[in-house]
Amino acid sequence: MPKVTFLPANITVEIPETETIIRAAMKAGLHINASCGGAGVCGKCRVFVEGGEVEGEPLPEGGYKACTLYPKSDVTIRIPVESEVDRRALLRPVKKVASAWLEAREAAQVSIDPAIKKIYLKLEPPSLENNMPDLSRLETALLQNLGVERLEVNWRLLRNLPYRLREKNFETTAILFEETPPKLLGVEAGNTTKRHFALAVDIGTTTICAQLVDLVSGKILGETSDYNPQISYGEDVISRIEFARKKDGLKILHEKVIECLGKLAQELCQQNNINPEELSHYSLAGNTVMSHFLLFLEPRFLRESPYVPVASRFPLVPAKDLGLPAGEQTILTLAPCVASYVGGDITAGVVATGMAKEDPLTLFIDIGTNGEIVVGNKDFLACAACSAGPAFEGGGIKHGMRATIGAIEAVSIDPQTLEPMILTIGNKKPKGICGSGIISLLATLFIEGIIDQSGKFRRDLNSPRIREGREGWEYVLVWKEESATGEDIVFTEADIDNLIRAKGAMFSGYQTLLESVGLDITMVERVILAGNFGSFLDLEQAIIIGLLPDLPRENFYFVGNSSLMGARMAALSKEVLAEMERVAQMMTHFELSAHPGYMDYYVSALFLPHTNLDLFPTVKELLQQIG
Amino acid sequence: MPKVTFLPANITVEIPETETIIRAAMKAGLHINASCGGAGVCGKCRVFVEGGEVEGEPLPEGGYKACTLYPKSDVTIRIPVESEVDRRALLRPVKKVASAWLEAREAAQVSIDPAIKKIYLKLEPPSLENNMPDLSRLETALLQNLGVERLEVNWRLLRNLPYRLREKNFETTAILFEETPPKLLGVEAGNTTKRHFALAVDIGTTTICAQLVDLVSGKILGETSDYNPQISYGEDVISRIEFARKKDGLKILHEKVIECLGKLAQELCQQNNINPEELSHYSLAGNTVMSHFLLFLEPRFLRESPYVPVASRFPLVPAKDLGLPAGEQTILTLAPCVASYVGGDITAGVVATGMAKEDPLTLFIDIGTNGEIVVGNKDFLACAACSAGPAFEGGGIKHGMRATIGAIEAVSIDPQTLEPMILTIGNKKPKGICGSGIISLLATLFIEGIIDQSGKFRRDLNSPRIREGREGWEYVLVWKEESATGEDIVFTEADIDNLIRAKGAMFSGYQTLLESVGLDITMVERVILAGNFGSFLDLEQAIIIGLLPDLPRENFYFVGNSSLMGARMAALSKEVLAEMERVAQMMTHFELSAHPGYMDYYVSALFLPHTNLDLFPTVKELLQQIG
Ligand code: FES
Ligand SMILES: [Mg+2]
Ligand SMILES: [Mg+2]
Repeated sequence: MPKVTFLPANITVEIPETETIIRAAMKAGLHINASCGGAGVCGKCRVFVEGGEVEGEPLPEGGYKACTLYPKSDVTIRIPVESEVDRRALLRPVKKVASAWLEAREAAQVSIDPAIKKIYLKLEPPSLENNMPDLSRLETALLQNLGVERLEVNWRLLRNLPYRLREKNFETTAILFEETPPKLLGVEAGNTTKRHFALAVDIGTTTICAQLVDLVSGKILGETSDYNPQISYGEDVISRIEFARKKDGLKILHEKVIECLGKLAQELCQQNNINPEELSHYSLAGNTVMSHFLLFLEPRFLRESPYVPVASRFPLVPAKDLGLPAGEQTILTLAPCVASYVGGDITAGVVATGMAKEDPLTLFIDIGTNGEIVVGNKDFLACAACSAGPAFEGGGIKHGMRATIGAIEAVSIDPQTLEPMILTIGNKKPKGICGSGIISLLATLFIEGIIDQSGKFRRDLNSPRIREGREGWEYVLVWKEESATGEDIVFTEADIDNLIRAKGAMFSGYQTLLESVGLDITMVERVILAGNFGSFLDLEQAIIIGLLPDLPRENFYFVGNSSLMGARMAALSKEVLAEMERVAQMMTHFELSAHPGYMDYYVSALFLPHTNLDLFPTVKELLQQIG
Repeated sequence: MPKVTFLPANITVEIPETETIIRAAMKAGLHINASCGGAGVCGKCRVFVEGGEVEGEPLPEGGYKACTLYPKSDVTIRIPVESEVDRRALLRPVKKVASAWLEAREAAQVSIDPAIKKIYLKLEPPSLENNMPDLSRLETALLQNLGVERLEVNWRLLRNLPYRLREKNFETTAILFEETPPKLLGVEAGNTTKRHFALAVDIGTTTICAQLVDLVSGKILGETSDYNPQISYGEDVISRIEFARKKDGLKILHEKVIECLGKLAQELCQQNNINPEELSHYSLAGNTVMSHFLLFLEPRFLRESPYVPVASRFPLVPAKDLGLPAGEQTILTLAPCVASYVGGDITAGVVATGMAKEDPLTLFIDIGTNGEIVVGNKDFLACAACSAGPAFEGGGIKHGMRATIGAIEAVSIDPQTLEPMILTIGNKKPKGICGSGIISLLATLFIEGIIDQSGKFRRDLNSPRIREGREGWEYVLVWKEESATGEDIVFTEADIDNLIRAKGAMFSGYQTLLESVGLDITMVERVILAGNFGSFLDLEQAIIIGLLPDLPRENFYFVGNSSLMGARMAALSKEVLAEMERVAQMMTHFELSAHPGYMDYYVSALFLPHTNLDLFPTVKELLQQIG
């Protein structure tokens, strides 16, 4: 990867050749005025190339637009004085963007031994001397092969059995689920042991992510995702539970998710020349509410006191019964849930990280549409849901939006001019601000002293960017002339308030849960950040605003979609599938709001980063340095 | 029951008040001219009442039509001289009609302990202190109740679980299938242990017979039957297998039988105020081909060498999957088959009779559309199919018909005038001859010396009833003036030939099968006649024609529909359900035609009653007495 050295700050970062210089600057923590999100429109992002090869369009008045400039070798770039940052920015550490972090190494490692086995059998073809029934012939061979006395047979396989056996003269592959007694799920003609596939899926409230997994090699053959189509009936789980109460509401939600899942399965199978009828396993993980919808289970009692799920551990389901593209042998498993708001996605995530088998005291955090936390190690596991709300996904934020094209994903602000530098997803004109942009903006406003610890704008800043709007004070991030919507994109004190409440709920959650098990935050040896959100998070900024605890940075791990990872591992290993049950059983669920100390913790967390700055020593030091 | 004494023969029989005098005469072995089948049309059946009370229409010229005359007390009836029989008829023993015989006593006895259990549970309703999921709450209680560590859960029950539990404040009844591990099939609201029902069904090639069984009391709540609607696509199994090869043929046959079964279930449930969704169990028994159709299994390999069924032991099937009226808990079992032509109906029958648990060497005979035989006792069981064909069900007989209204079911012939006495089912004008009528007619023709041992008509009888028709010699049983069809109803030498071949196939089957296991027919200690056919059979006549072996009459048992009986017992007792598997495994199947001695046995059996009269000592004696 080319090295990019910025002058006059003399800071060097590495970026791929496919990334722009403006992104390199953002990574370096350097400010370049850039108000159109890298769309090449505002023309404010001029830089000068002082060495190395670049690709980009020179500006007539000299220099290049940083947002359209790519490094082709190590390069030296001078940022002109109108963009140059003050000393405060220089003090900021080089950002560690999440995508550059390692996924927890062990996480994806698993020895391949799926619960669904394929066994190749060369049966003796029937003759007048031996004309036992097809099924008996198959069973006899299998019982011998497995060394068991009894098999349970899926009656559905009988329909095709005679054809399958005769297609390759009684060479056949049996598909079994390993249990006591083993379940004979299906048969295929000839030796198909090399073709053994699973679909691993994370059923998120917002997004459904699927991977096609080769159960022989362990390889991921393809990956795809789509929005959960239930979104049309409610953004969050609560509104969907409400929708489910309407006539046919539950049916619609159920059918929508099945339809989407089926589409993803079809798509991945088609790309890999696999007939979906060949699939052995749909290995799914989702939160409790998503799991209910998926199986067409009544969710209303999850919402009404005393908050009871229909089930938290789910029986095997024939995938065909759900209307999924599948053969008669295809089974579907759902990761077991722990409680109404700590679901199978968390169980799968915890299993995927391996934390339940290791010594270090680990804090597992999933910030998604809902926030869930788990703390523990091989000896114990405690979990809780935080009522953080969807602020970090853009929900309840005036110009918040999901992380799609045109979303502002990173922000820096010139502390003198208060001019922003913004980057948008896809380098398009900005439409709104997504989660990582929101955190970036909040941290920047705070660290530059534009807002105070309680999240209020300094009233004495003389800039058109800071104004009192109809809904109170706000910062104008993008003027309407440069936004995709034709409206000013602003960030309001109300937005900041929501964010502080959300991060406060998370942080007080860590504290309360740890206290519930007799520990405190300083004892945490490892923090694992799960979920899509984690992957785009700027760790420093998240600590600055008090969303994450101020612990040694090397103890943080981003595992990405650990729910999907766990689902994949469960397909690949019967031990993991069993481990899911063990971990779900082992997790003690705590109702945070029921804890007597919770409210105090929460109220104390409604400051940036926290009322008690001693909990955030590096932030405290940074604030002191900045003065 | 009134006693009816006939003069001048001075023979007394008992009949119910609802039976006619003409039937009493037939039972007594006495001949009354009666050529309209008891329809009251021919007016030839005049008798005189000499004592006792009767109900009936007096004839203007004196006396009554015997076919419309009912005894209201013990009565004395004089048969006028024009009807009186000769000494040969007097020699004939009083007939033992099958319906008067006892069913094998133990057969229907079974201690009630169904494999499907209902367990009433009073669960603790959820509270904030105990808000475990519905399923876990139920499972925890069940595991404790059953003293097991694991349950398998039918995922379909989850859909209704929360409503069912809450309907009676967490008082619920769990429905389980007892296995290792137990299967939780479903739940009902409140205590429904008193409502526990099964449908026992014999799926015959011709007739489907169903009983609604109370699994608590063991009582039969209702019984019904209908023709197997597959008949429209072929009378016998072979023609249906052929039909199944056509496009959608198998699907049609499958759907037809399911539809009929569903209709019978609905009907019985409705009559007993039971919702079919309450049914716990469809306990079915049928021959191998019917079992294949029922489960939508390819039957063609049953017909092609080496004659392989798809399955002979069938997994549990959720009844709903077959489209039957059922709840999600309702399971369907099918009695295990032994071979392509020895099916679950025979297994069920053998289990029902108890012969597989007892000492006496027993010959079990089922003469239906196909003939099947089993020989053995608690130590061994051997079975075979006889290619007897459907002659005894009227198939291949010129005026043969099924045992429905208008079918001639009993015949006697005046040996001097050769005038017949016929009785029809429903006392209607005759349409044709059914199985029992055919045997009756054949035996009568033979015993009266009208046909010889090879089944040929004596050519020297001077009667319009014996004539050479277009298709050879024949006996005119009903003149067209008195038949319902407007045609003469005749019985031809070709018919007789078919019958001799059919009974020869059965008898040589007994001999061959017995020889295969080192025994002979004289060693048989008990003969059990199964099937509908058995129930209407005149035992003496069946022995006279050589269809049944000439063994002590007290060793014969008619068990009626033993397939249905076995199916019912399997629903009532998990031991019987398991016994079915044991018996099916235990039965050694012999291919009769593969036995070197079979052809000789067969050819020797093509005489009335047999080439070797010493095999039929009582028939031999009777023939000698008649002279
Ligand atoms: S009238 Fe009585 S049998 Fe014909
Ligand atoms: Mg998630
Ligand atoms: Mg039968």
